[in-house]
Order: sequence, then structure tokens, then C-alpha cells
Amino acid sequence: MRIGLDAMGGDFAPEVTVLGADLFLQEYPTGYELVLFGDQEAILSVCRAHQIDVSRFEIVPTTEVIAMGDHPAKAYAQKTDSSICVGYQHLAARKIDGFASAGSTGAMMVGAMYTAKVIPGVLRPTIATIAPRLDGKGNVLLDIGLNADCKPDVLYQYAVIGSLYAEFVYNIPSPRVGLLNIGSEPEKGDLVTKSAYQLMDGSKDFNFIGNVEGHEIFSDKADVIVTNGFVGNIVLKEAESFSHIAKKMGLKHPFFDRVNPEIQGGTPVLGIDANVIIGHGASNDIAIKNMLKITQQVIAGNIPAKIKKYLNLLA
Amino acid sequence: MRIGLDAMGGDFAPEVTVLGADLFLQEYPTGYELVLFGDQEAILSVCRAHQIDVSRFEIVPTTEVIAMGDHPAKAYAQKTDSSICVGYQHLAARKIDGFASAGSTGAMMVGAMYTAKVIPGVLRPTIATIAPRLDGKGNVLLDIGLNADCKPDVLYQYAVIGSLYAEFVYNIPSPRVGLLNIGSEPEKGDLVTKSAYQLMDGSKDFNFIGNVEGHEIFSDKADVIVTNGFVGNIVLKEAESFSHIAKKMGLKHPFFDRVNPEIQGGTPVLGIDANVIIGHGASNDIAIKNMLKITQQVIAGNIPAKIKKYLNLLA
Repeated sequence: MRIGLDAMGGDFAPEVTVLGADLFLQEYPTGYELVLFGDQEAILSVCRAHQIDVSRFEIVPTTEVIAMGDHPAKAYAQKTDSSICVGYQHLAARKIDGFASAGSTGAMMVGAMYTAKVIPGVLRPTIATIAPRLDGKGNVLLDIGLNADCKPDVLYQYAVIGSLYAEFVYNIPSPRVGLLNIGSEPEKGDLVTKSAYQLMDGSKDFNFIGNVEGHEIFSDKADVIVTNGFVGNIVLKEAESFSHIAKKMGLKHPFFDRVNPEIQGGTPVLGIDANVIIGHGASNDIAIKNMLKITQQVIAGNIPAKIKKYLNLLA
Repeated sequence: MRIGLDAMGGDFAPEVTVLGADLFLQEYPTGYELVLFGDQEAILSVCRAHQIDVSRFEIVPTTEVIAMGDHPAKAYAQKTDSSICVGYQHLAARKIDGFASAGSTGAMMVGAMYTAKVIPGVLRPTIATIAPRLDGKGNVLLDIGLNADCKPDVLYQYAVIGSLYAEFVYNIPSPRVGLLNIGSEPEKGDLVTKSAYQLMDGSKDFNFIGNVEGHEIFSDKADVIVTNGFVGNIVLKEAESFSHIAKKMGLKHPFFDRVNPEIQGGTPVLGIDANVIIGHGASNDIAIKNMLKITQQVIAGNIPAKIKKYLNLLA
């Protein structure tokens, strides 16, 4: 498996990206080739400073960087020798099996839509995260911010995509899919959610278990929790704030680390025809390692093929 | 000040309601008269069992109880001698200054709408909670579940109502009002929120400071956070779940108690022409005491008069 990493992506790149790549290879010494896209001299310099054996990486030298302040679409069009652009070119040419970056989320999304491309039949791509549970497991939560307004048919398809993601990346057979709502009864909720419930109820495309409430996001009630990107993003960031509040209190628990975006790793873009992972700009080396682990899992799960099979696009 | 309490309301009534009323009077020995609506013999029995001086309460005997399983509107119409109905009659007749219940939320809302009545000009009443901060203060969060779908003008009015609530109940001068959203920029969000931003921006009716994100709900960024009842309810219940998760971890901190609905007390119904507080069914005696404290604060703040003044309904 060949995993591409944007060595220039994130607030502390390339130092933490190279360190994170090294941590990943320490944990998985065989079976994976890491392809680093970025400023070759800067990457080599980090390796020298930290006595990292550079021969363990394949480096694809690039000369440009899309900065956080750049306009995503313009920068993606103009900075064709940027680490993100070149990474996507390698992804599209199947020279790498997946591509991960903690750099500009906007530019990564532009690449996802225009270079990796949306799978025909997918209404809207989505990004998903894992809502941790106290038992050490976690629930797939989607959409977490790509589509603020979702019509019921989009939510229905998110249930399909989330279910495939839970089954093939997290090995949960027949994942229980819940609809995030403000009550347990079918008639509860806003208009779109009520309508989505009607669509989902009795579906044979996934194992719908009904509504899930706000206090059940981190519980064992459902394996996949579907909502629109407006609610999902607010829910996610609220959870992240609790990891910071716990830190300020001096409380330590693995659960809080798992809702800490600076540690957690990244989110896959689902519904596109490639494996793309977007990490948090503030990622440290452990977050980069975790982002690469998620990329590895997503590649292994081969969700694009599963979505195509569902959409009858494969023979 | 005369505070009415539904002695039969909640899962553990009348024992915890009477105990909570007693705790309240221990904390505030003068200046408040508590009027208990309920089964007189049951109330006296609790007082005897716990050696509570019953003469400190005024008891209005009622013979019926609206149960949690009852249909709210039907029960409110039929059980006219229930503690909730009689409480609302006393409220409408101005025999009490406010009415609090941890009983049927549905029946309490029916009474709020049909007996206390919506203030003319208020588009939709709302319920609010306090999102705690680590500094011991808290932010007003509304709506937390009354109106799942809110048009921009409703969100605008919630900003007005929340601002009056923060100023006159929590003594925050010129409260900073934030719009719960998924980014800091004006163009972020779902369609309704984007439109609400345009309405709120530059408003002279309140001190609008822009968008507030999910991780800022419990921060010092805004004193009032406005959202629709769908998002607000999910956000609230997610926060509540963190108090339960912390409890399971064995972590103790006052912050977690303040997001624990079984302790926190209750939420006012704002936009109606009376002071009504709805508590959590699982309230214990401390939660009942806290519900009475919120009732006391809400009565003192006299929000109905402030809303009427804003709507130019007062001379």
C-alpha cells in the first residue's frame, strides 16, 4: 500500500509531518510505502535534525505550498507544483492509493471534487468523524461540515455511505444507523429530519434503528449517526471543546484525547472516487501519525468501490 | 414574591418537591412565599416524615395529577383540578408571581400557550438554558427545543429575548449576542443562519457580535447564543451527556454539575405573559431548589414587561 502525505500541510509542517511519518513507520515497519510531497531540502533537513533515515520515504519534490490564507480554488488552479496539487495528480494517476494532508482544507476539497472527482450517482460527498465511546469503540458521525443544508435524499445517501464506512473500515457488520434528532419518536424533529425518517424507515439499504438524541452520540445506541453538516459540525466542535475544558481542569482520560482534533488525526472525504483524508491544521506529530493510520484503514476498506457497487456502477 | 410550585411534578414527587421547597426556604428564609399545588395529605405526610414545618408553605389542595404518559393537551383540558391546571389558574389570576413544575413538559407548555398566553407580537415563545463557563459564569443558549424550524425573523427575535433575559435576569449589561454557526465568516452556515446573520448585523435591538462556533458555546465569546430548537436541543443534550460521561469516569467538577439536567434546575418559557419554569422530570431535591431559584430570578427580572416594552406594548 502506497500512502501519499502532504509534507507541507499544517501549521507545523514540514517538521511534524516528517516526524509523524516516521512514527507511523515505527508502528508499521512493513507493508507500507510513504510518499512525501513537498520541499525536498526542507524534508531532508528535518530528517537530519531528528536522525530519521530518509531512505524509508519516497520524496516527490514540489516547489510551491498552498497557504492557509490562499483562496482555495485559485491557489489550486495556479500553484500547480504545490504539494497538494502534485499529490492529487499522483492520486488520480493511481501512483498512490490514498492522499492525506493537514494543509488547506479548502484546497483539499477542491482537489477532491475536481481531480479525484465525485462518484457518479453520489448526490453530495461528505466528511465523517468518529464519535468516541467509553468502551473504547466509536460511532461514525456524518456529515460534519461539508453540506450545511441537506435534503432528505442526501441524508438517506449519507446513511448508506456511513454504513459502508462503518462496515468496511471499522469492521462493524450490519451497522446500526441512527438519525440525529430531538426526540425518539418518528414525528419529532425539523421538517427535513422528519422527512428523512420516513425515507429511512424500513430501508433495505442499511440497518435503520430510528432517532438518536444529542445525549446518545457517544453511546452504544447506534454505530452510524446521520445529520446535516450544520448540526454535525457544531456537535463535533462542541465535543472538541470538552477535550479542551477537561485539559484546563487538569483531567486526563483517553476519551478526551479522542475528541481532541489536534490528536485525533483526520476525516475522510467520502463519495469521491479516491481515498482522501483531511487533517487538522494544528496537528502535532501524533496527529499526523493518526491521520496516516486513518488513511491506511480507509484505503484498506476501499469505500469508493463499495459505493459504486451500491450504485450498481460495477459489473 | 409568591412562587408557585407543582408539588406533584416530577418522577419523585411529592417527596423531592417538598424537600426541595424546604431547601429553598432554608437558603432564603425571608421574602418569599412558596405556594404548593398538590395532594394536601401527601404533602403533609412528607413534611411529617422529614420533620418539615408545614406552616412555612401555603398549600393549595388539588385532587388530580397529569401523568408523564398523559396526552398533554387532553389532560390539560380534562384534569382541571390537577396541580398544573390549578397552578396556571393562580398564575393567570396573578395570585402567584411565577409557576414552576418538573412535571409533564407537554402540559406545562399547553398551559404556557393557552392560559399564560403568548405576548402579542412574539412570533414564537422559546425556552432557554445556561451553558456554563469555566469561570463560573454562564451563557444564555436559546432555543433549546421548542421550535425545531426557525425562520430568520424568529432567530432575530430570539436574539432580542435572549438579550433581555441575560441583561435583566443575569445582570449582564449590553449582552454580547452570537449566532451559532459553523464558521466565523458571515457567509458561513445553512441558508437560514446566513439570512439571520444579515438581519442581525448592525442591529440596534441588541449587541450582535457575529457567529459563534460549536467549540465556543462554553467560552467567554458571547453572553447569548442564538440557534434554532433543533440544534439547541442537540447541543444541550450533548453537553448533558458529558456530565454523565464524566460521572462514569469518576471525574468531579462543578462545571459538570452545571450541565447535569438532574441538578441544573429548569428552563424558563420566554415570550409568554407570565413567569413559567419547566424542570427536568428526574429532578432531585437540589434540582427542585435550583428550579425555585431560577423562578425567583426570572420573576425578579420581569422579562414579560421587558419584552412588551421592546414591542411598544407598554405606555
